[in-house]
Amino acid sequence: VTSVGILGAGPWGTALAIVGARAGRSVTLWARNPDTVTTINQRHENPAHLPEIALDPAIVATSEISAAASADIVILAVPAQTVRAIAAAASVHIRRRASVMSAAKGLERGSRKRMTEIVAEVIPEARAAVLSGPSFAGDVARGLPTAVTIAANEEAHALDLCHAIGSSAFRPYAETDVRGVEIGGAVKNVLAIAVGIVAGRMLGESASAALVARGFAELRRLAEAYGAEPHTLMGLSGLGDLVLTCSSRQSRNFSYGLAIGTGRTAPVTQSGVIEGIETAAVARELAQTLRIETPIIEAVAAIVEGSLSVDAAIDGLMARPLKRETD
Amino acid sequence: VTSVGILGAGPWGTALAIVGARAGRSVTLWARNPDTVTTINQRHENPAHLPEIALDPAIVATSEISAAASADIVILAVPAQTVRAIAAAASVHIRRRASVMSAAKGLERGSRKRMTEIVAEVIPEARAAVLSGPSFAGDVARGLPTAVTIAANEEAHALDLCHAIGSSAFRPYAETDVRGVEIGGAVKNVLAIAVGIVAGRMLGESASAALVARGFAELRRLAEAYGAEPHTLMGLSGLGDLVLTCSSRQSRNFSYGLAIGTGRTAPVTQSGVIEGIETAAVARELAQTLRIETPIIEAVAAIVEGSLSVDAAIDGLMARPLKRETD
Repeated sequence: VTSVGILGAGPWGTALAIVGARAGRSVTLWARNPDTVTTINQRHENPAHLPEIALDPAIVATSEISAAASADIVILAVPAQTVRAIAAAASVHIRRRASVMSAAKGLERGSRKRMTEIVAEVIPEARAAVLSGPSFAGDVARGLPTAVTIAANEEAHALDLCHAIGSSAFRPYAETDVRGVEIGGAVKNVLAIAVGIVAGRMLGESASAALVARGFAELRRLAEAYGAEPHTLMGLSGLGDLVLTCSSRQSRNFSYGLAIGTGRTAPVTQSGVIEGIETAAVARELAQTLRIETPIIEAVAAIVEGSLSVDAAIDGLMARPLKRETD
Repeated sequence: VTSVGILGAGPWGTALAIVGARAGRSVTLWARNPDTVTTINQRHENPAHLPEIALDPAIVATSEISAAASADIVILAVPAQTVRAIAAAASVHIRRRASVMSAAKGLERGSRKRMTEIVAEVIPEARAAVLSGPSFAGDVARGLPTAVTIAANEEAHALDLCHAIGSSAFRPYAETDVRGVEIGGAVKNVLAIAVGIVAGRMLGESASAALVARGFAELRRLAEAYGAEPHTLMGLSGLGDLVLTCSSRQSRNFSYGLAIGTGRTAPVTQSGVIEGIETAAVARELAQTLRIETPIIEAVAAIVEGSLSVDAAIDGLMARPLKRETD
């Protein structure tokens, strides 16, 4: 039986453990917190991160990273800014030619690198891949139908991963445009903060929809300049994930924007990571380097770093001349 | 002062009357129902169609179509399947070189024609245009920020119309791809029914987002084969309007799908027109003629005509092989 090791037992890591078990794989789930390990192994649930979901008793939790990192397929389900450290800790245990698949959506601060670039640097003997697309952990855990993208440089590798973890409710599609899948997954979180802000200001659903369309145009421009293939942005991992993240309180990024927009101070301590905060600054740097105009991304980066007020940002985004719609 | 005549005093026609008055135009609003005319002129509101919204007393309602049809700019704000009859009734009153702008989103049954094609046939001496984009009547009436598209064959004509009715909250962008704007506005209503059905079946937000992405791919394929420009579909009148219509109960098409999906029999008598019902069949015919695969549109057309059950449609849409994501 193909073994799947999952690094990170937050909502998404736990949901992916359920996915692996449903597909008939042997699943080992690594959690840093020993209490989480005990709860999963004894009570077969992870109430702190995925409440009211029963876990297959076959899912084994561990606090030994070696137990999960030595699987045939290793999934990195940790925040983007910690992927490098976790991959480094896991690296000595990774089998030669194992698949190491990122399930994190973000770009690394400082290096501006994608998650699979970090994997290739830190674990060069592994085969890197990425899983992305519109999929809330709660929907996936409940067995609701979900379609996602798995990308790897070699199509055969991506297809193998699709077959390894796919099932009737969780349908992965294989893709080879790794770059496009990762930039789309990272930047949509930044745009979701913007749409959350507009929703929080009660500017109406029409304004939010216009902002999603404008945001998608920004994402496409940036991604194409970055070397992504246009069709990737149109698909599940681009548009699909953007639509999901920009329309639901289940999205932490959208909810964070909502909190800013309603005038509640952005909570200093978040329950869970808001990937779009860190990625906003990186995406702005990328856009400047590539000389792409990204007013929405710039506004979010400035708001979250505290250098622009929400009112000023909204004025800037909404007050545009009556002219030809530019893309 | 430029005069604006609006044919149709439903929610959208009434909201556009408010838009015209805000832009400083002289607005005449034609309603078929004499009670509506009286209520608007005496109480300055249209509670049946746009409750809790005060109308500018300068907006004059009339039951004489000649009074509205003789304006400089005539806006057709009636259901798509009645545009031909209303345009015909108005035609003798339309001034030579007047702008006749469609605000209806649909394709005519039988002829499969777009609204501006009907205008060109019935009122050949007028200059046709179309107004589309993500804009709920309620949002527009309340003065919430809204960005829309106005398309005409001549850019100068579209720009004139943008300036004639634009204001700080209601921002029209000029476009010349009339065909693309109209096909996008028509087909998005069909897709919204599909997304409503999936939402009604409680299949989760992830499934809805995947369906929006797949639906957008269908819309793009169909529209490009039909001769639309790709960039138009990416913009406000394509993607923006699709996102809005597929995510809100304010959309009658989405709500109709929701009613079907929850198993409530689709109400025979609707409060207001569900444009996607008629357009589904026309869009399916177009796709067959153009030899484009449109499984979502086909499923909606079959469901609304009663030849396919919702369960069978969902099985067909959701159970796909694990393969490369095709566009």
